[in-house]
Amino acid sequence: MAAAPHALPPGATIGILGGGQLGRMLALAAAPLGLHVHIYAPDAESPAAETAAKLTRGGYDDEAMLRAFAAEVDVVTYEFENVPAACAALLAGLKPVRPGVKALEVAQDRVTEKSAMRAIGLGTAPFAKADDAEEARTAFAALGGKPAIVKTRRLGYDGKGQARVSDADEAAAAVARFGAPCILEGLVSFEREISVVAARGIDGRIEAFEPAENTHEGGILHRSVAPARLKPQIAAEAWRIAGVILEALEYVGVIGVELFLDKDGALLVNEIAPRVHNSGHWTMDACAVSQFEQHIRAVAGWPLKPAVRFADCEMENLIGDDVTRWREIAAEPNACLHLYGKSEARPGRKMGHVNRLFPFSGRR
Amino acid sequence: MAAAPHALPPGATIGILGGGQLGRMLALAAAPLGLHVHIYAPDAESPAAETAAKLTRGGYDDEAMLRAFAAEVDVVTYEFENVPAACAALLAGLKPVRPGVKALEVAQDRVTEKSAMRAIGLGTAPFAKADDAEEARTAFAALGGKPAIVKTRRLGYDGKGQARVSDADEAAAAVARFGAPCILEGLVSFEREISVVAARGIDGRIEAFEPAENTHEGGILHRSVAPARLKPQIAAEAWRIAGVILEALEYVGVIGVELFLDKDGALLVNEIAPRVHNSGHWTMDACAVSQFEQHIRAVAGWPLKPAVRFADCEMENLIGDDVTRWREIAAEPNACLHLYGKSEARPGRKMGHVNRLFPFSGRR
Repeated sequence: MAAAPHALPPGATIGILGGGQLGRMLALAAAPLGLHVHIYAPDAESPAAETAAKLTRGGYDDEAMLRAFAAEVDVVTYEFENVPAACAALLAGLKPVRPGVKALEVAQDRVTEKSAMRAIGLGTAPFAKADDAEEARTAFAALGGKPAIVKTRRLGYDGKGQARVSDADEAAAAVARFGAPCILEGLVSFEREISVVAARGIDGRIEAFEPAENTHEGGILHRSVAPARLKPQIAAEAWRIAGVILEALEYVGVIGVELFLDKDGALLVNEIAPRVHNSGHWTMDACAVSQFEQHIRAVAGWPLKPAVRFADCEMENLIGDDVTRWREIAAEPNACLHLYGKSEARPGRKMGHVNRLFPFSGRR
Repeated sequence: MAAAPHALPPGATIGILGGGQLGRMLALAAAPLGLHVHIYAPDAESPAAETAAKLTRGGYDDEAMLRAFAAEVDVVTYEFENVPAACAALLAGLKPVRPGVKALEVAQDRVTEKSAMRAIGLGTAPFAKADDAEEARTAFAALGGKPAIVKTRRLGYDGKGQARVSDADEAAAAVARFGAPCILEGLVSFEREISVVAARGIDGRIEAFEPAENTHEGGILHRSVAPARLKPQIAAEAWRIAGVILEALEYVGVIGVELFLDKDGALLVNEIAPRVHNSGHWTMDACAVSQFEQHIRAVAGWPLKPAVRFADCEMENLIGDDVTRWREIAAEPNACLHLYGKSEARPGRKMGHVNRLFPFSGRR
């Protein structure tokens, strides 16, 4: 079986919205396939520009610039989920946009997202919308009057726009403070967080990497370990969940699915990221194909590769000053370093990551 | 042990002379280390430019451009061995040049090269210089009057500037036709060709990849298989030879050492390439570190990584029209594709390569 006739040939150009480290690593993965990358980003400093064939600097609301960008590329993808709906709709009228507008709509709003997961039979934490302070009180009561998390419905990331609340007054105050529509999420009997990074090809084929186990610090992913410590049937269930989501969204590309394992052994969908995902960075050095190449293959209409893991791996994010440890990391024999080329190590800023490889254990 | 104090920090810039596929793959390997790459090349089409931070287009004899280039980089390396001596000398007066001028001098002239190998106790094919047609007759006789190969002393590559000769007249005619100083090489009782790609760090540490077995078509490398079929003591001897060369040249960086295994089990140095080498491309997917990252680490003064292989690998060069097979290759589950972004597939042009991975056999 060969690549389908509609697969983009070497020499074609993939347009990527967003110029951060994910765009950078996508560009690094596209080059060996002979595919050019054209980055579209508003920022002065775009880590992706260094490794891409071209950069267009423009706003996501600049219709003329977006049209010019679309004219120069063969397919459009994105490296962040908060692409404005109007931007995505405009581009989708001009060139194929993959993973697609539907995935963006679902992922951009926590209420829409959780409702969509429930609608396809998947578990989530209990939730209720709280678009204003008044509704926050109703929502708090609806969740049983127990401690909950208030999150903005849109534009939250890395723990930003989140607050834990213990009573209705706190819930109302949090929503008022955020000044934006929110969601209240009930607490789950949290055992651990895992994630599945999976891809769906244009032919509908699905390839899922093994679940990784994630730990956060200060709301930011700190470490992902693959494989996660899971019973085989729970790992299989995680894969099944990812597959159900990919098919429901008629998805093409890589998705990150964050899951909570609760103390009863149930898997609850926390959130989905319609893009390559920080918790999948371990695939760069421990698998037969990285999540970045897999995403490029999917959006270019190429066949996916088997998402086979051949080593155990611990991915550590290098946040802010962590990057000053580069000398020690460079000397670790089993450490694969991935820096993002950012000049300033601000607190909380993702500067790079390191994948530490260990012999394949076969364990799940 | 950490990287040495003089190691170039992330954010530093590596200057590379040459903009071909080797420069491209070096740039792709430098990015994850946070090191920028500045390519210097005279050509309009430079595959390396797409993945590098900066390109200076200039001639290797353009002193002003070379000085400006040197001012913008922290270290200089090269991706081809025919860097003009004056260019290398100029740059070496301004910035560290690694692997260094000495390695270039030895590798650029087949007579100097073979003499240098003999001087450090290594075997080569019998040879004699033939700087003109008259000397070709003397040389032919000196090699015992047996069939031999005439090669230009300088600037030969991929089988260009070579002719097989059976008598003194043919030898003289070949040298006259090439119109340049030549070498006559006696034929060896050829069993197979292998190569060792090895690196020496700034601290003197040597890391050698396992020997690969090479086959050529039309004078161009066609296939490299790792590991080579060798008895353990011969593989060890190949490593020893690479180490002797690296130390004699006070080398910093990756070297390619082509060896003939003769029917008596002796290893003869065919030629050395003071750069990353086509027969080391298999390391990109089958080893804990690629030859490209290893070279960047060496020239940046970083510690080398262990050159450990974890899979068997067959590297196939995609020459000219071979690249039209990309659809089939893209669908092979164990094939890792590496295209060079060249637009025109001329006959004999290296367009890319594919690494096919197989389970680690442990065999030598």
